[in-house]
Amino acid sequence: MKIKRRSLPAGRRAIVLLSGGLDSAVTLYIAKSAGFNCSCLTFDYGQRHRREIKNAKELARKSNCSLEIINIKLPWKGSALFGKNIRVSKHLRIKEVKDSIPSTYVPARNTIFLSFALSYAEASNANAIFIGAHAQDYSGYPDCREKFLSAFKKVMNTGTVLGREIRLIAPVLKMNKAKIIKLGAKLGVPFEHTWSCYSQGKVPCGKCESCNFRDKGFKEAGLIDPAFLKINK
Amino acid sequence: MKIKRRSLPAGRRAIVLLSGGLDSAVTLYIAKSAGFNCSCLTFDYGQRHRREIKNAKELARKSNCSLEIINIKLPWKGSALFGKNIRVSKHLRIKEVKDSIPSTYVPARNTIFLSFALSYAEASNANAIFIGAHAQDYSGYPDCREKFLSAFKKVMNTGTVLGREIRLIAPVLKMNKAKIIKLGAKLGVPFEHTWSCYSQGKVPCGKCESCNFRDKGFKEAGLIDPAFLKINK
Repeated sequence: MKIKRRSLPAGRRAIVLLSGGLDSAVTLYIAKSAGFNCSCLTFDYGQRHRREIKNAKELARKSNCSLEIINIKLPWKGSALFGKNIRVSKHLRIKEVKDSIPSTYVPARNTIFLSFALSYAEASNANAIFIGAHAQDYSGYPDCREKFLSAFKKVMNTGTVLGREIRLIAPVLKMNKAKIIKLGAKLGVPFEHTWSCYSQGKVPCGKCESCNFRDKGFKEAGLIDPAFLKINK
Repeated sequence: MKIKRRSLPAGRRAIVLLSGGLDSAVTLYIAKSAGFNCSCLTFDYGQRHRREIKNAKELARKSNCSLEIINIKLPWKGSALFGKNIRVSKHLRIKEVKDSIPSTYVPARNTIFLSFALSYAEASNANAIFIGAHAQDYSGYPDCREKFLSAFKKVMNTGTVLGREIRLIAPVLKMNKAKIIKLGAKLGVPFEHTWSCYSQGKVPCGKCESCNFRDKGFKEAGLIDPAFLKINK
């Protein structure tokens, strides 16, 4: 699912899932650079790191794209996976599940996000959906894997009239963080407006798993993270 | 996807998509009769026939099941299919689309509903999702077809950790309306609490496409529709 410019449909209209994080911001700029007229979609689902919604707004404004914010109230919030009575299929031992699924996992989150994107795409005659799913760092999320995205493509094909016309593109899926950052820098992504931290502070905590991934990525890319500069002020 | 009692997983917990309409009510009673402890899920998405939400509540109360109501505000509402600039893939001629897709079609509606059901199922450790999709009368809805439901099954398998443990069951998919009504009557479905009409009145209009389907179904089943009795009062 690596992006291939020559194989992209004629850049017309794209729905871009924009979380306000780094991966989706780079994804938006990839879509723009491929000539798509982008409409962004973000979700307020009671996430702990709601700060990222503000960043999604800033990123949409900076990139001159529209943004729709969908409010979702999930009455069930957490996952049974972290309850006491864990029941998993035989092919996944409990230890594996506990080890591989981060505690930030929200059941079927990407399925929900993509289903809204699909509705938006069909209603607005878009011919692509861009998602910043990223398999490497967050390999624990089942709904970031290529086989999940391939399955969702089939849903797009069969569940809508325009299905076959709408492409699902995950351009950063197989890139590592450093590569995503390098590409983002080249495309002019305003990293200072992206938010990766799981906490709610005014500046990133610099300690959580997500901050660590980001920090490592910038170091490997040989670049300075403008968002982290604030920590050192 | 016809229901086979012997092939159902041990009746534990099921999420049932309950619209308040006839098909989903019968589906709920099928799930209950198969021994499932049912949690119902309905959606307030600004539908014209919002009266059905009240009916979903009554049906859940009558059947002694819990009900979650999810509020969804789709900023894009209509479908591009009904706009002036219709663009459809080559394999579907415009006339075919206009003829086969009812004007009540909401883009990707069942994909959205099923994605919430999937999240609920995983979060609450359910082992089945029941949907009252019905291919025959509403063959125009792409997201009521068997191939769409099969594709969504794949999403369930790949997009969640518990995926392979959660089954998607559409017990009335291939039944005609009369058969659904007969089965519902046998299972004690309180038809007076189901709503099929597209209008918002206190009683069904008796004139719309949905009322006509229902009326025809009851006549073919040789039964009297308690909801329609009110019209004749």
